[in-house]
Amino acid sequence: MSKQTTKLVKAITSRDEDFAQWYTDVCKKAELMDYTAAKGFIIYRPYGYRLWENIQEYLNEKFRQTGHDNVYFPLVIPESLFQKEADHVEGFAPETAIVTIGGKEELSERLIIRPTSEVLFCDHFSHIISSYRDLPKKYNQWCSVVRWEKTTRPFLRGSEFLWQEGHTIHQTETEARQETMDILDIYRNLGKELLAIPFLTGKKTEKEKFAGAVDTYAIEALMHDNKALQSGTTHYLGTGFAKAFGIQFLDQSNQLQYVHQTSWGVSTRLIGAIIMVHGDDSGLVLPPFVAPIQVIIVPIQTDREGIIEACDALAQRLSDKHLRVKVDKSDKSPGWKFSESEMQGIPIRIEVGPRDLEKGECVVVKRVNHSKTVEKLTVVADKMPSMLQEIHDEMYQKALDNAQDNTHEAQSYAEFKELIANNAGYVKMMWCGNSACETKIKEETTATSRCIPFIQEHLGDYCPVCGEKAKYLVYFAKAY
Amino acid sequence: MSKQTTKLVKAITSRDEDFAQWYTDVCKKAELMDYTAAKGFIIYRPYGYRLWENIQEYLNEKFRQTGHDNVYFPLVIPESLFQKEADHVEGFAPETAIVTIGGKEELSERLIIRPTSEVLFCDHFSHIISSYRDLPKKYNQWCSVVRWEKTTRPFLRGSEFLWQEGHTIHQTETEARQETMDILDIYRNLGKELLAIPFLTGKKTEKEKFAGAVDTYAIEALMHDNKALQSGTTHYLGTGFAKAFGIQFLDQSNQLQYVHQTSWGVSTRLIGAIIMVHGDDSGLVLPPFVAPIQVIIVPIQTDREGIIEACDALAQRLSDKHLRVKVDKSDKSPGWKFSESEMQGIPIRIEVGPRDLEKGECVVVKRVNHSKTVEKLTVVADKMPSMLQEIHDEMYQKALDNAQDNTHEAQSYAEFKELIANNAGYVKMMWCGNSACETKIKEETTATSRCIPFIQEHLGDYCPVCGEKAKYLVYFAKAY
Repeated sequence: MSKQTTKLVKAITSRDEDFAQWYTDVCKKAELMDYTAAKGFIIYRPYGYRLWENIQEYLNEKFRQTGHDNVYFPLVIPESLFQKEADHVEGFAPETAIVTIGGKEELSERLIIRPTSEVLFCDHFSHIISSYRDLPKKYNQWCSVVRWEKTTRPFLRGSEFLWQEGHTIHQTETEARQETMDILDIYRNLGKELLAIPFLTGKKTEKEKFAGAVDTYAIEALMHDNKALQSGTTHYLGTGFAKAFGIQFLDQSNQLQYVHQTSWGVSTRLIGAIIMVHGDDSGLVLPPFVAPIQVIIVPIQTDREGIIEACDALAQRLSDKHLRVKVDKSDKSPGWKFSESEMQGIPIRIEVGPRDLEKGECVVVKRVNHSKTVEKLTVVADKMPSMLQEIHDEMYQKALDNAQDNTHEAQSYAEFKELIANNAGYVKMMWCGNSACETKIKEETTATSRCIPFIQEHLGDYCPVCGEKAKYLVYFAKAY
Repeated sequence: MSKQTTKLVKAITSRDEDFAQWYTDVCKKAELMDYTAAKGFIIYRPYGYRLWENIQEYLNEKFRQTGHDNVYFPLVIPESLFQKEADHVEGFAPETAIVTIGGKEELSERLIIRPTSEVLFCDHFSHIISSYRDLPKKYNQWCSVVRWEKTTRPFLRGSEFLWQEGHTIHQTETEARQETMDILDIYRNLGKELLAIPFLTGKKTEKEKFAGAVDTYAIEALMHDNKALQSGTTHYLGTGFAKAFGIQFLDQSNQLQYVHQTSWGVSTRLIGAIIMVHGDDSGLVLPPFVAPIQVIIVPIQTDREGIIEACDALAQRLSDKHLRVKVDKSDKSPGWKFSESEMQGIPIRIEVGPRDLEKGECVVVKRVNHSKTVEKLTVVADKMPSMLQEIHDEMYQKALDNAQDNTHEAQSYAEFKELIANNAGYVKMMWCGNSACETKIKEETTATSRCIPFIQEHLGDYCPVCGEKAKYLVYFAKAY
């Protein structure tokens, strides 16, 4: 028995006992990642990286359909370039990693490892843009970025993480703002169609917005422990960077104008969201369309005549339907194989044993609710695509119900504090729009504003914190 | 007219006048890349990056078919880990970039930005391997690496470049050596099937092998200026890293053994090879299967009735055949559009003008030899797939003929020196196997050994440099 298998014997910590430990256990035991000698830097193991590749594939398709081009920009930013936009540098400078030595010599100018690449794109844009005919430019980059974090957790907060960062420039504010909304839609659909996660969308407050943005929009999700996870953002950057970097174009009337800019990104945090939204005490539970393996076939009594052949034949029929399938032919016991497939969160397990084979049947087990059905071997392959869709829909609905059940309204600040103290999830409350109230809430409850949702409700006329006139309904929550 | 277009007016330097300048002109004017404020770090613009994505797609498919998993390992290597394998550190330490500051504080241990990731993979392997059942592990990673280079050239030599690095561990030497050969085959086929480049394959000499390898194998290609370009390598690493990092497993007889290891990679150098093997005085010439745009349709007199519609209809028929097609509807003149499509190296241009349309015809121009034919609009789409295959075959054959025409034999060292001085391309010569002769050749002629080819010829009994008994036939050349 291999070392990995032996480790599996130890059950993982239960979610309700210690959610943080459960999370780490799942990350390690489902072999999604491993730690390294460099603190905060992790290894994305094959199973974890495949999740990211499936997210990449989905987004690349959507980005192409909407006219975005992939590019690759440098890993490092000369310090002088990094400092050109004041808000941006103030936001990011404290958490940068800096290269000071190259080829055994001290560098004359220090190089910042990109924490995000706005300044590099701006510098390039300023060289290639001169006319309205050059616009828009809609670029996307897949890469890793480095942000020096004191406390790190796999996928959620790391010194290095993988992401995509979109950078676009446009002739008008309207067009640029539309871009931030279009991308937010793509992100929301990524949740709905691939991750089975219902994202709450809205605008960030001034306090929570991106360093250098005019407006930031976000997708937020509620985890099993009722903490929120910011899962992606889009930014309307206005003309601030354009002015700092001189990105100008001659418009149709031959007037010099600054471009209107956006940036946006999602990261490997999404893997953390998948784990914490869907996982259970047996391990990962993967939504079918993002799962590296969608169906695992477990032969029972592999030495009995015809068993392996029947499993292989079934696997072939599933592959022909473009499903991702694996036959577990290892010499582990069926019980081990079941536990492993549960830990890995494989959506469907098909068991084929000698008695099943005699009857021309197999047992089909859904990971999400452990339900078992007996199916005819002749038709089971045909049923798989719709069964995977059902599982996806079921998981999405379950996550949506959970988010709705854990969304509350607070009419008073006392009520708000009690809800937050009880880990009630999202708490909706009216807000005056002043950062002072937000700061007070954070200091007194640790909750932060998640977003000002696009669909506004009216819960009252005044901000329960300060008593001033209320401007918005805001979702608050404890957050990662 | 946009700035880019204006720049196109200036013809590029001719290849025979100044090959280095021609190369840089093509890189810039075909919009493959741009320079940045950080020396040696370039931007991969959409058209250049798409070439890389097409290479990635080809290799990912092959790597998966042969059981390799993609992973992602950290960007940085703690200095103590980096120093564990002596040959390796000696080879790479002089050209590393080093992070010394993180989060505004001096780091207690310096972090090397990966110049290659053997040590990271080794460290991980040592944690996850215990039994023969855990083997083999066959991993691949797409990432960028940093090597501090004094003189840099786009795609050929940069402080940062993109590559894939494979890292595998096996139970036996035989299996590991087979892996290095299998991957070399994949690389050779990449040349044959995608890049239309005939790669010479063979073993590197001791002097030219990878730091830490037992044996290195390479794919080499001859550029238009008769210099060779090492385009990819595979390494049999033996058990050296395994011993340094303690990567051991219990074999079937319960004996503790060290794993046998390989690593291998190709990089964005391949883009440089495409440019320098196929390009001409009008710009890029792209092999059809790696080309971002395979067919460009140029409407002549865009305001004439039916022209745009006919072009769009044709484009749709080509897209339906899964070809990559673009209709150039910009308001530039047809002449401009022709020059641009030539500069971009688009394999086929289809021109549709009013008179063509009346006759139900179009003009088809092949980029590679500027040949023009008139085709019926009703059948032109059906002809495209085979025409693209013909162009590919033609380009491959042309490159093969060129390499063969520029491969010579030297019986004496005097003859060798004359051939090298005349930029004759590859020079085959017998060699005694001593590094001293190789060093002498390099010092006196600047030529280096490219490889000891798998198919050995016998040109004589003695090494023409020292007069000792000859061991191998070696290909020498001036190289990038």
